[in-house]
Amino acid sequence: MEKDSKYNWRQKLHDIIYEADTPAGKSFDVILLILILASIILVMLESVKSIGARYHDFFEIGEWIITIFFTIEYFARIITVKKPSTYIFSFYGLIDFFSTIPQYLAFFFIGSNALLTIRALRLLRVFRILKITRYVGESNKLAKAIKDSKAKVSIFLFAVLILCIIAGTLMYMIEGEESGFSSIPVSVYWCIVTLTTVGFGDIAPVTPLGQLIAAIIMIMGYGIIAVPTGIVSAEYAKDQDASKITIDGEDYVHMNTQACENCNARKHRDDALFCHNCGHSLFINE
Amino acid sequence: MEKDSKYNWRQKLHDIIYEADTPAGKSFDVILLILILASIILVMLESVKSIGARYHDFFEIGEWIITIFFTIEYFARIITVKKPSTYIFSFYGLIDFFSTIPQYLAFFFIGSNALLTIRALRLLRVFRILKITRYVGESNKLAKAIKDSKAKVSIFLFAVLILCIIAGTLMYMIEGEESGFSSIPVSVYWCIVTLTTVGFGDIAPVTPLGQLIAAIIMIMGYGIIAVPTGIVSAEYAKDQDASKITIDGEDYVHMNTQACENCNARKHRDDALFCHNCGHSLFINE
Amino acid sequence: MEKDSKYNWRQKLHDIIYEADTPAGKSFDVILLILILASIILVMLESVKSIGARYHDFFEIGEWIITIFFTIEYFARIITVKKPSTYIFSFYGLIDFFSTIPQYLAFFFIGSNALLTIRALRLLRVFRILKITRYVGESNKLAKAIKDSKAKVSIFLFAVLILCIIAGTLMYMIEGEESGFSSIPVSVYWCIVTLTTVGFGDIAPVTPLGQLIAAIIMIMGYGIIAVPTGIVSAEYAKDQDASKITIDGEDYVHMNTQACENCNARKHRDDALFCHNCGHSLFINE
Amino acid sequence: MEKDSKYNWRQKLHDIIYEADTPAGKSFDVILLILILASIILVMLESVKSIGARYHDFFEIGEWIITIFFTIEYFARIITVKKPSTYIFSFYGLIDFFSTIPQYLAFFFIGSNALLTIRALRLLRVFRILKITRYVGESNKLAKAIKDSKAKVSIFLFAVLILCIIAGTLMYMIEGEESGFSSIPVSVYWCIVTLTTVGFGDIAPVTPLGQLIAAIIMIMGYGIIAVPTGIVSAEYAKDQDASKITIDGEDYVHMNTQACENCNARKHRDDALFCHNCGHSLFINE
Repeated sequence: MEKDSKYNWRQKLHDIIYEADTPAGKSFDVILLILILASIILVMLESVKSIGARYHDFFEIGEWIITIFFTIEYFARIITVKKPSTYIFSFYGLIDFFSTIPQYLAFFFIGSNALLTIRALRLLRVFRILKITRYVGESNKLAKAIKDSKAKVSIFLFAVLILCIIAGTLMYMIEGEESGFSSIPVSVYWCIVTLTTVGFGDIAPVTPLGQLIAAIIMIMGYGIIAVPTGIVSAEYAKDQDASKITIDGEDYVHMNTQACENCNARKHRDDALFCHNCGHSLFINE
Repeated sequence: MEKDSKYNWRQKLHDIIYEADTPAGKSFDVILLILILASIILVMLESVKSIGARYHDFFEIGEWIITIFFTIEYFARIITVKKPSTYIFSFYGLIDFFSTIPQYLAFFFIGSNALLTIRALRLLRVFRILKITRYVGESNKLAKAIKDSKAKVSIFLFAVLILCIIAGTLMYMIEGEESGFSSIPVSVYWCIVTLTTVGFGDIAPVTPLGQLIAAIIMIMGYGIIAVPTGIVSAEYAKDQDASKITIDGEDYVHMNTQACENCNARKHRDDALFCHNCGHSLFINE
Repeated sequence: MEKDSKYNWRQKLHDIIYEADTPAGKSFDVILLILILASIILVMLESVKSIGARYHDFFEIGEWIITIFFTIEYFARIITVKKPSTYIFSFYGLIDFFSTIPQYLAFFFIGSNALLTIRALRLLRVFRILKITRYVGESNKLAKAIKDSKAKVSIFLFAVLILCIIAGTLMYMIEGEESGFSSIPVSVYWCIVTLTTVGFGDIAPVTPLGQLIAAIIMIMGYGIIAVPTGIVSAEYAKDQDASKITIDGEDYVHMNTQACENCNARKHRDDALFCHNCGHSLFINE
Repeated sequence: MEKDSKYNWRQKLHDIIYEADTPAGKSFDVILLILILASIILVMLESVKSIGARYHDFFEIGEWIITIFFTIEYFARIITVKKPSTYIFSFYGLIDFFSTIPQYLAFFFIGSNALLTIRALRLLRVFRILKITRYVGESNKLAKAIKDSKAKVSIFLFAVLILCIIAGTLMYMIEGEESGFSSIPVSVYWCIVTLTTVGFGDIAPVTPLGQLIAAIIMIMGYGIIAVPTGIVSAEYAKDQDASKITIDGEDYVHMNTQACENCNARKHRDDALFCHNCGHSLFINE
């Protein structure tokens, strides 16, 4: 009996932490999101010298509060899940571990430079936000569009990289070291900076021939930038019509689970305006 | 009788100020547009030191003329509207107030620094232009396209921001303070500057590893820039076909209110070339 | 009889100069194109100090040769056209005049600074190239696509300009004159440089708040750049289907003037693969 | 008999080198790809002064190993092909020759400056990678999309170039030499840098009028960047539907060679989900 109550307690906690369907689960996610954002802002502000020095104690206390909360959350996740090892060695399990541990490490092993690097690990918590936003419908669709066009865009970017290696080597040979093109990798870096239209200007061609080649690279970049855009646009437009499929000349359209207010009939077309069963408007309250 | 004539006078003024259908209303809008543009140019030129000092008196007189006109307009709007409080606390009412008041404040409380900040408030009048351009049909359609794709683009920009935080922290750890990456917020700022392909060049990586990471960020930015473009393109293309809807396999197209010159029949298709009733060309005068 | 032969001579010359259908007309256009390009390269190279000083005599002779040819061409155009005044006061007539006259002016009135400005007028000849490329089919279609989306893009750019005025004023108030934001027009200029993702870096925010606003402007610019692209993409995609029109539910497709090799039937669909009359393949030689 | 065995040996080697269908051929391509990448990284790293000086001997040995492999590969290609001259004077034959020879030349004729230029020729091997990636299906489709829109994008870029010449000359006349606009070619170069939104910032307008013109150029560039994107998007979207053609009102869709697992029927639609013959799912293993 007691064991059963304990199981219930663990089950409830599991639902709160891992599910977002219950009000408690939603509240937990919102609190977690706020704490992650707070911890990110803390780490970022602490890195600003003038602020970091003045409010040092405030940051220290804030970090400890957040770290303790994340520690509790981490152990709660381990306890409530059936196979703890699954969570511990999952992507988010490792992020949770590596973003919580630095504060403890910094407490025991204090070395200014190492501290800096370790503390920044706490920013890994930002990935958690992505997991929470997973519930937002749009991001799934967006992720699909990006995934679908990934293969094409990757090949395109690979071709751009080869172009940058050739053009970068050319610029290295033309411009020489006086203009900042000190080695082929640096020239390739400059070429990427230019072709992506970023253009820092820390390195810039000074010889007429170098400027001519640079102009050609830029004009090409202008034409090239259109290609990934065209790919994603076409891929995305295709997705828009994805609810309609054609099998052997017959059109089949995707049916949603919307229920008619009048006759409660379900399985309407996504673009249906009226119920297919009773003709009642499906948008009567809008 | 006298009250009625007064009412008529207020009604007429109301139509001139708030409506753009009558010739007088259109003239009023054009004059208002010109005066707003003149006041914006005045404020902008006054901020240029060399011009501001030489033509100080001219600017002073010009500002007073415009301010007095806007004051009269402001009170005319209050008088002619039925519920003055609705106008006063509306978005445009507040803009009208806060863009007119600085000149009076500057007259009574003269302090050079505060003056600067207050005077710039007059530029708020620029919003008025947006209200007038509301009458232009295209801008409505454009606004709709932007509004429709806002949700998707927002989520995308949020993902970009998280990417910038991670990449910015990485660059802060790699480059250190000598290269200008003095804190995580500054590094994130640099990362946004780079990923959006702006590339000021005030901060630029100098270490080989930093340049490699920067190159990866840029190549990613090049592929990423395609995504919002694809979203808006697809959304906009969808709008183009919005006049045609399909209900239960039957196509229904939007009918406009254009009247045939020959038989005066209405409700033609948006893409109709000839009258559906008499076959007369609908574009005979073009 | 003699008058008639003279008329014939003028008619022939007219065809060579104004028409591009005959072999002589095509040759004339090609020679003209080469001469215009040569004159443009001459003016450009002459402006380079080191080259301009060394090869001064060569440029002088080259310019005179080209100028004399253009003078002859100019008078030939006047003589052969029926109403000379129509040509003289046309856009290309004025360009021909103003791009030929500087060399003569420079000969009579020699003043180094004025000379510089006048000589550059010769670059107006570049417009002539546009007129010749008019014959290339693609450019007409491209011009149509740009023209169709001009209204929408203009309104969009106007909205961007208003945004730049507001953001520029804000940056002027935040950053002040130490960072280079010396006046509102300069700030607005910086804002345009940033929002269009050009990012020179001659002016860059240094205060944390200024960098935050700049980051917001850039992220917005990243989302905004998608809008004109979406407009033109949709407009261009629409043009692709322009050959097919629908009248009262009936589809009408554009017919081309291609002739079938087998039965010589004309008026095939643009996308026809086989002759509609005899079923012979229309692409037998490809 | 011995001659026949020799022929077999040559035939086998030919298949390994020139074909990618057999396991041995695939392995050869992968090894070749790795060696090319290794040689590219070697040349790039060698150009970095600090690394090049320290690990000079390592680079020397590495280069000789790779060069000897490429020499063997070059002669193997000549021996196994039927008409050696066809390979030797082909594009890839010349690249193989010119990317292998520098190491031998550098061994016999040692001159530091000339060496630099010659060694960079080894980077030509990067083209080989493109040839290997030829087998990746997507790149063919991408190449087709770029090829289809090449004509339109070229004309567009030509119009942009003319615009840059006019705007560059204008900027040269307005800004003068103090701002870095030292000659018309440099001004045109700046104009290309600006219009393509690269914006190095090594040259930037300082006069108010120059900044105004620059702002107009940028706003134009912002609108113009949409055009090639629109072209490629439309072209790419068209390609997506290329599997479906319409002849005389009847739709014909492209049939693939996929075989049904159940009844072995072939020639299904590209978008078929079930076998048209037996109704068995075509995606049973996915």
